[in-house]
Amino acid sequence: MINITFPDGSVRGYESGVTPFQVAESISPRFAADVLAAKVNGQDWDISRPIAEDASIELFKWDSEEGKHAFWHSSAHLLAEALQELYPGVKFGIGPAIENGFYYDIDPGEHKITSDDFKKIEDKMMELVARKEDIVRADISKEDALKMFGDRGETYKCELISELEDGHITTYTQGAFTDLCRGPHIANTSPIKAAKILSLAGAYWRGDEKRNQLVRVYGITFPKKKMLDEYLTLLEEAKKRDHRKLGKEMELFTFSPTVGQGLPLWLPKGAALRDRLEQFLRKIQKKYGYLQVITPHIGNKALYVTSGHWAKYGKDSFQPIHTPEEGEEYMLKPMNCPHHCEIYKSSPRSYRDLPMRLAEFGTVYRYEQSGELHGLTRVRGFTQDDAHIFCAADQIKGEFLKVMDIILYIFKALDFKNYEAQISLRDPNNKEKYIGSDENWHLAENAIIEACAEKGLKAKQVEGEAAFYGPKLDFMVKDAIGRRWQLGTIQVDYNLPERFGLEYTGSDNQKHRPVMIHRAPFGSMERFVAVLLEHTAGKLPLWLIPEQAVVLPISEKFNDYARKVVEMLDEEGVRAFVDDRNEKIGKKIRDNELKKVPYLLIVGEKEAQNDEISVRKQGEGDKGSMKIVNFAAELNAEIASMIK
Amino acid sequence: MINITFPDGSVRGYESGVTPFQVAESISPRFAADVLAAKVNGQDWDISRPIAEDASIELFKWDSEEGKHAFWHSSAHLLAEALQELYPGVKFGIGPAIENGFYYDIDPGEHKITSDDFKKIEDKMMELVARKEDIVRADISKEDALKMFGDRGETYKCELISELEDGHITTYTQGAFTDLCRGPHIANTSPIKAAKILSLAGAYWRGDEKRNQLVRVYGITFPKKKMLDEYLTLLEEAKKRDHRKLGKEMELFTFSPTVGQGLPLWLPKGAALRDRLEQFLRKIQKKYGYLQVITPHIGNKALYVTSGHWAKYGKDSFQPIHTPEEGEEYMLKPMNCPHHCEIYKSSPRSYRDLPMRLAEFGTVYRYEQSGELHGLTRVRGFTQDDAHIFCAADQIKGEFLKVMDIILYIFKALDFKNYEAQISLRDPNNKEKYIGSDENWHLAENAIIEACAEKGLKAKQVEGEAAFYGPKLDFMVKDAIGRRWQLGTIQVDYNLPERFGLEYTGSDNQKHRPVMIHRAPFGSMERFVAVLLEHTAGKLPLWLIPEQAVVLPISEKFNDYARKVVEMLDEEGVRAFVDDRNEKIGKKIRDNELKKVPYLLIVGEKEAQNDEISVRKQGEGDKGSMKIVNFAAELNAEIASMIK
Repeated sequence: MINITFPDGSVRGYESGVTPFQVAESISPRFAADVLAAKVNGQDWDISRPIAEDASIELFKWDSEEGKHAFWHSSAHLLAEALQELYPGVKFGIGPAIENGFYYDIDPGEHKITSDDFKKIEDKMMELVARKEDIVRADISKEDALKMFGDRGETYKCELISELEDGHITTYTQGAFTDLCRGPHIANTSPIKAAKILSLAGAYWRGDEKRNQLVRVYGITFPKKKMLDEYLTLLEEAKKRDHRKLGKEMELFTFSPTVGQGLPLWLPKGAALRDRLEQFLRKIQKKYGYLQVITPHIGNKALYVTSGHWAKYGKDSFQPIHTPEEGEEYMLKPMNCPHHCEIYKSSPRSYRDLPMRLAEFGTVYRYEQSGELHGLTRVRGFTQDDAHIFCAADQIKGEFLKVMDIILYIFKALDFKNYEAQISLRDPNNKEKYIGSDENWHLAENAIIEACAEKGLKAKQVEGEAAFYGPKLDFMVKDAIGRRWQLGTIQVDYNLPERFGLEYTGSDNQKHRPVMIHRAPFGSMERFVAVLLEHTAGKLPLWLIPEQAVVLPISEKFNDYARKVVEMLDEEGVRAFVDDRNEKIGKKIRDNELKKVPYLLIVGEKEAQNDEISVRKQGEGDKGSMKIVNFAAELNAEIASMIK
Repeated sequence: MINITFPDGSVRGYESGVTPFQVAESISPRFAADVLAAKVNGQDWDISRPIAEDASIELFKWDSEEGKHAFWHSSAHLLAEALQELYPGVKFGIGPAIENGFYYDIDPGEHKITSDDFKKIEDKMMELVARKEDIVRADISKEDALKMFGDRGETYKCELISELEDGHITTYTQGAFTDLCRGPHIANTSPIKAAKILSLAGAYWRGDEKRNQLVRVYGITFPKKKMLDEYLTLLEEAKKRDHRKLGKEMELFTFSPTVGQGLPLWLPKGAALRDRLEQFLRKIQKKYGYLQVITPHIGNKALYVTSGHWAKYGKDSFQPIHTPEEGEEYMLKPMNCPHHCEIYKSSPRSYRDLPMRLAEFGTVYRYEQSGELHGLTRVRGFTQDDAHIFCAADQIKGEFLKVMDIILYIFKALDFKNYEAQISLRDPNNKEKYIGSDENWHLAENAIIEACAEKGLKAKQVEGEAAFYGPKLDFMVKDAIGRRWQLGTIQVDYNLPERFGLEYTGSDNQKHRPVMIHRAPFGSMERFVAVLLEHTAGKLPLWLIPEQAVVLPISEKFNDYARKVVEMLDEEGVRAFVDDRNEKIGKKIRDNELKKVPYLLIVGEKEAQNDEISVRKQGEGDKGSMKIVNFAAELNAEIASMIK
């Protein structure tokens, strides 16, 4: 008999050799049917693998990362099994689970696989599933492994085996397919109820462009057919919302290979949109006592030696800029904090100056590999809505409350209704990993926890997730189709004030070190605009959308009046344009409703005579005729109610 | 007899050997008394130097650069003569005229010269002047020159002589002082009526830091005592207006050696000031159809190879930024035009899209030697109020008219009452130096000339001053103490559209090349703020000044009410602060009047009870009591009248 300890601390006795699946069954057969993976003594463990000694156990279903991981990892094997049957002689590289699904890198040899073959592969996978094959783990010696895979001509696998340590090599087998693998896997392929091959891509063996190029086959599987349908709908929806596509259609931004990859060029409509977001944030920040500053986009290398960034990131960053004479070295600034520390230092500071909240829409540059770049979400140059709050330790909580006010105000104004918060704390068992005194950490962590409690914000507390220089609070929003985006971090920093020797004179007339708080509610203008576009599918809130209204002349005769309406609206701060296409008014209305322009303003004889417009509101229909200025006033009032 | 031709083309006969002075006397003795220098056949010529053959002549008085130059050059000799008498054994380097006055580099040997000696030197100079010594030119052989200066131990002069060609060496002598010199000089020291030694500085012999350090003695002289007084007053005034001093006092900007020299850090009050200027310009530009864009601060080197900047400036610029992988090279952008060309190219353009006016407050970086850096007027990073107008050739005039509107509007709003304009044209005799067709140049030059005529702007036309890529119009303002600053350039460019292959489809359905116009009314935010500070001595226009009003509580009891007044004014967009120093109200009024705060708002019992303030306006005195909101409305109306 052995003792198995459960996560809630309870202990039960089992016979030695019991498997996690059997443990689950002993709780409830129904529960056991859903269990996909396990951890035994904190180690990944197949649910069909026997446990020999006393141990702690965790059991995972589909709703956990671990459960999905095992499910998709086994699905990768299933894919390989299918490919082996369909394409004899195909050689296998590696086939891991990923965030959404899995892939397998294969060398197709003489075969040519295209998207036309996806259906055939999916069918074969489901045919194999119908065989309800067990997935069986085996220990194998290095010699046997090399022989087994060598006999099959699996050169890639043999290369991997040759680098492994004998005595630590395992295989997993289902039907006629055996893979070199560490596991864990689900016990049997039968829970896989739906499979979809998603795409093909090229991938160098071991990521080395000098070696063979393999074909990477991406797929996804689900324990329910309905789940696959939902996922495919989501993919479709995400494609429609792709901010790169919308950015192009809406003429917001572009990229030029001559300027450089990952360096967005903001077109007029995008720059204006960005400016509206910036003014919106400036206004609320002014209310909360922020002081805007402007600093250069480069700094002497010495600045980053002082900040510690040079030692930590210098090698992997854009390299230093040399002056043609005088031997100076500058860096593109990867963040604004060192510059703000220098502004703090530019004058002696007293406790009366604190909290000092220095804000900047600061453009920073960070090298990313070209393969990692993605639209506006992963770029090499971006503008942070940055601020650094220099304060006394006992002001941290108050400042967190104020920053939370700003972040929640933004979420409201931009219609992010679902969000979560996480407090990242020190690992209490590894205190030596962190800079700053015990007392300060205690104070700052409690300040954050109390601030969340006061705001009624349920925040998950995670130990060991804090940066080495201080605890933080993160916000995660869910967008309209359920995807999660990290927005808004508030980060305490004990490190930079130390490195830059920042000081203030306290009321005790002594020198003290201030605490620094980094915060950026949007994160960056680029990423935020991308998230907004993907969240709203381009149907931005009225105050933000590039074109608030379209003027539709019922015939060419009224084009001039339509243009006059646009001018008058412009004077009232309303953004409108004329649809003067030579089309029937009915078609113009339909087209612009389809484009989701918030207001359609129809003008003809009667309207032109009375300085009026006939108003149709998207989703609400006809609102009748009204004077141009009255419409503008109503629209502006509507906006004021959204971002008051 | 020889014939002398005057600048107006008239010719007179004189005896051979006549001097320019005698020529001047023949016109009018009174005129001759003022003549300081001459050119004979376009060559510098002492007015006492005989003319042997037929020649053209120009005569220069104090009001010309040439006149001042000869006067100050002779004054440098006078200084040397004085130093030689006062400090026997002193050795001389070089002593040229400069923009304002002159200097002489000397090796003082055993002597030590300090500012305490200035009076003594000035007195000695005026004592020498009283001797009315002629300044006499002599040709001298190289051998004789080496001997003469060698005998006197003038090692520096000997080094210079040794590098000269025999037969082209001249000396000038006055009293006991002889200098190696090419001239020209005034005829006699007697026109020098006032002398001032200004400062001392160190200077390496021949600018080489490995050679002896000499003492550079700066001085200035005038033909009238009153002129010196005026000059010294101007110097005093300029010192008070030094934008570096004002920037510090007003807490507008700072520099940090750790960030890097020539890289301004804009402090909160400066950043806010800059933002007001930017919004002011954005507003007028929006009215004129400009489209704001935003581009990155770096660009791939290829961009500058295309633009031609790499070949022309690459070596002397901040050097390329290498990526840690992938072997890419980026440059800090020295200008925004290449990026704007790429935006133009991002879509096919038609004649209907033109003129397209792309504007950006774009920060650019250019390497300057550290010795050249000066406050905000000469920096390594600055933000241009840039725009590029892409238009058809026949739209150039209309665009120039519009840009001139903007520039003249700015001059008015910022109280620059004196300005001049210059049109820079091609050198008609060297047409091959310029890019673009004859027809295009003709068209563009005429467009500028006509635009100036239409605006009633008297603009000097200067041939040969155009850039190789197009003609331009420059504006030069005179500030409050008469100094001239270049502000506002409008530049036609035929080059970049060619290099970037820019096109539009004309109404003829054919491809055409657009013309580009560069324009920046401020030049840069940095330089413009500096000029504004020096022009206004910090007393900026009401709409721009950081602090428009100070609230003065008559006693501590009303400090809270004073703070409430500031908050209420802030809500109305009025920038005010409280002077809550524990001082008598009379002193507070005097101090703040001295600081030139535009409005003083005095609050006591009566005001606090009625939500009122007692208003004093700078320069106008008591305006009586009024409601806070009424005051704000009046102030805002005053501003609206300034920048409507």
